[in-house]
Amino acid sequence: MKESLWNSILSVRKNSPLVHNLTNYVVMNNTANALLAAGASPIMAHAHPEVEDMVTICGASVINIGTLDEYWVESMLKAAKKAHGLGKPWVLDPVGAGATAYRNETVASLLTYKPTIIRGNASEIMALAKVGEAKSKGVDSVHQSTEATGAAQWLSNTYGSVVCVSGATDVIVSGNKKILISNGHPLMQLVTGLGCTASALTGAFAAVSNDKLTGTAAAMALLGIAGELAQKESAGPGSLQLNILDKLYTINQEEFFTYLKAEEDNG
Amino acid sequence: MKESLWNSILSVRKNSPLVHNLTNYVVMNNTANALLAAGASPIMAHAHPEVEDMVTICGASVINIGTLDEYWVESMLKAAKKAHGLGKPWVLDPVGAGATAYRNETVASLLTYKPTIIRGNASEIMALAKVGEAKSKGVDSVHQSTEATGAAQWLSNTYGSVVCVSGATDVIVSGNKKILISNGHPLMQLVTGLGCTASALTGAFAAVSNDKLTGTAAAMALLGIAGELAQKESAGPGSLQLNILDKLYTINQEEFFTYLKAEEDNG
Amino acid sequence: MKESLWNSILSVRKNSPLVHNLTNYVVMNNTANALLAAGASPIMAHAHPEVEDMVTICGASVINIGTLDEYWVESMLKAAKKAHGLGKPWVLDPVGAGATAYRNETVASLLTYKPTIIRGNASEIMALAKVGEAKSKGVDSVHQSTEATGAAQWLSNTYGSVVCVSGATDVIVSGNKKILISNGHPLMQLVTGLGCTASALTGAFAAVSNDKLTGTAAAMALLGIAGELAQKESAGPGSLQLNILDKLYTINQEEFFTYLKAEEDNG
Repeated sequence: MKESLWNSILSVRKNSPLVHNLTNYVVMNNTANALLAAGASPIMAHAHPEVEDMVTICGASVINIGTLDEYWVESMLKAAKKAHGLGKPWVLDPVGAGATAYRNETVASLLTYKPTIIRGNASEIMALAKVGEAKSKGVDSVHQSTEATGAAQWLSNTYGSVVCVSGATDVIVSGNKKILISNGHPLMQLVTGLGCTASALTGAFAAVSNDKLTGTAAAMALLGIAGELAQKESAGPGSLQLNILDKLYTINQEEFFTYLKAEEDNG
Repeated sequence: MKESLWNSILSVRKNSPLVHNLTNYVVMNNTANALLAAGASPIMAHAHPEVEDMVTICGASVINIGTLDEYWVESMLKAAKKAHGLGKPWVLDPVGAGATAYRNETVASLLTYKPTIIRGNASEIMALAKVGEAKSKGVDSVHQSTEATGAAQWLSNTYGSVVCVSGATDVIVSGNKKILISNGHPLMQLVTGLGCTASALTGAFAAVSNDKLTGTAAAMALLGIAGELAQKESAGPGSLQLNILDKLYTINQEEFFTYLKAEEDNG
Repeated sequence: MKESLWNSILSVRKNSPLVHNLTNYVVMNNTANALLAAGASPIMAHAHPEVEDMVTICGASVINIGTLDEYWVESMLKAAKKAHGLGKPWVLDPVGAGATAYRNETVASLLTYKPTIIRGNASEIMALAKVGEAKSKGVDSVHQSTEATGAAQWLSNTYGSVVCVSGATDVIVSGNKKILISNGHPLMQLVTGLGCTASALTGAFAAVSNDKLTGTAAAMALLGIAGELAQKESAGPGSLQLNILDKLYTINQEEFFTYLKAEEDNG
C-alpha cells in the first residue's frame, strides 16, 4: 500500500489540481498555503453568481461549514448540488456538527448531495450519522452511533462516501474496506484548523485519484508525517504551523516510507 | 499579586474554557491560535440562527468590531444581549471607535448590554467614553475625557465593566481599583491584531476567574511577557508573530515571575 | 533610478500612510502585516455605512476582488467612486479576472472609476483589457490582447492608470514609459497572496508618491528583494511567508542597491 500512497502524493505534485474551497474565515490562509505546498492550486470563491462556475472549472470542491451563515450555506448547497450533478468529487467537513441545531440542519441538507469524502473528528462523524438517520428514518433511529467507526460505516454505506474519522489514528472507511493511519503528533491539536487542512488536502487528492479511499489515506498520511517531521524542529504551536507547510513541500519518498504507519483492513 | 496572576494562567490551562469569538477577518487565525496556545478552546461563529446557542455553550464571548458590517453588528447585538441575560462574561473590543460614525453608533448600542470587560487602546477608550456620555446625557457631556485613564474610570463606573487601556503600560481599572502592567515590546505594534489577541485572552481568563480585574491583568501580563521573550528570538515582526504563539504555550512560572512588571493602585 | 526607488521606500517608512483595504479573506492577515512591516498603517473596512468615510480618511484604497460577493462588490464600487471623486489614489487587483463572468462584470464596473494603479498577473491583465474593450467598443474589439504588455499599454492609455503585470519580470507601464523589475524568487509563487501583498504595497507607495510609476516600481522591487533575501533563510514556503515580513521591515539601502534589478524603457 505504501507505494500507492506515495504515488498519490506524486500525482498531486505532477497534476497540480485546481481545488475549490468554500471554507471558514479562520483557516483560509493556512489552507491555501497547505494546498500550494502539496502541489495543488487553491481557489477560494463563494459568491452565488459564480460558485457553480468555480465547481465546473475545478477538479474538486471542499465544503467546510466552520463559519457558516445563511449566505454561505446557500453557496455550499449550490456547490454541492453542482458537483453532484457533474459527477465531480466534493468533500464535506462538518465542523462543529452536533454543537447547534443550525449546523445539524445544514449538514443534513448537504448530505443529500452525497459527498465523495466526509472528514471530521469522532464527535462530528457521530453527530453526522445521527443527523443523517434522523432525516432518513424520522425519530425511530435505526442506528444509534455510539462510536465513530460504526457511524463512519453507516455514513459510507448510506451516502456512498469515503469517510475519514481523524484522531490519533485516522480511520478511513469505504464500504467494507478500511485503512488506518497512525501518523501525526499531539501538538498538532494546538494549531487551529489542521483538520480543515486535512479536508482540503483530501480534495486535492480526490481530484487526481480514481481510488478515493487510497487518495484520502494518502492525504492523511502526508499531513500526519509532515506534522511529525515539523514537530521535531518546532518550539511550540506557532512554529509548528509554518514548519508543517515547509514539510508538505519538501517531504520525499524516503522520509515518507520511514515514517508511514498505515494498516489495511478489508474486513 | 504575582501569585494570583500566575494562578489565573494555570486556571486557563487547566480548565480549557470554550471562548466564543465574534471577531474580525484579519485576526481570526492568529486569535484562535493564541487561545489554543494559552490553553483555551476557541469557537468562531456569527450566524444569526446559532449565535445565541454559541453564547450559551461557551464560557465567555469576545466581540471585536474590527471588520463590522450590518450582518455582523446584528450578530454582535444578539450575542451581547444573550450574554448579559445569562450573566455570562463578555468582552468588548471597540476597534477603530471614533474613526467613523458607524463604529460609534455600533459601540453605543453594544454598551447597553454592559460588557464585563472593555479592552482598547487609549484613543478607542476615550472615543468610547465620549460615545457613552453623549448617549446617556445628550449633548451636555458631563465628562470630556481628555485622557484615557479618566475615560476608563468613567466607563467602569457607568457600565460596571473592567476597563483595560492597553499601551506601553496597560492600565486596568475596576471601580476605584487599578492594576498597571508594563510588559511588552514596541515591535509588537508591527504585528497586526495583537490588541485583538489581548481581548480574546481576557475572554478566556474571564471564563475561569471570579475576579475579573485580576483575570484581565493576568491576560495582559501573559501576552506582554510572551512578547518580550519572543522578541529576543525574532528577526522582525513576521517571526515575532509566531514566536509569541510558542511562548504563550511554553511560558513557565519562573519566566513569568522574572519578567512581570505589575503594580497595584487601590487608590 | 535606484535612488528614487529607495527614496520611495523611505517615504513610506517616514510618513506611515493609512492604507484602506477592501481585500479578500485569504490574505487579510498577511496583507496587514506586510503593510505594517513596510512602515504603513493598514485599515480593513468594507461596511456600506462607513466605506466612503474610510476612503476619505486614508491616503489610498486597495480593492482586491479575490473573494468577492454581492455585498463586497457594492462596497468596492462605493469606495472606487469615492476615491475617484476625491482624486485619491486607488489600486485595482483583478484577482481571477477571466475565470468567471461575474468577475469580468465586476472589473468592468470598477474600471469606470479609473484606477490609479492596476496590478495583476499576465492572464488577469489580458482578461481585463478584453473586458474593457468589450465594454467600451462592443463586440468589435479593437485590440485583441495576445500578450500582457500590449494589454497593459492599452489599459494605461484608456484609463490613465499605471499598470503592473507581475511575473518573473514585472512590467510596469504608464503611457509610453515602462519600468522592468526582475527581482523575486520562484518559491514566492507557493506562498498564497503575495500578489495581493504587492497590490497593497503599491497602495502604500501611491499614498506618498507624486510619481505613481516610480512608486509602483519601488513597491514591486521592495517585495521582490525581500523575497530573495528571505528565501535564503527559508526551508520552504511556510518559513518564506514570515521571513518576507521580517525582511520588509529590516531591509536597508545597501541590500536594496545590491539586489535591485531594474531597467527603464522610455521607448
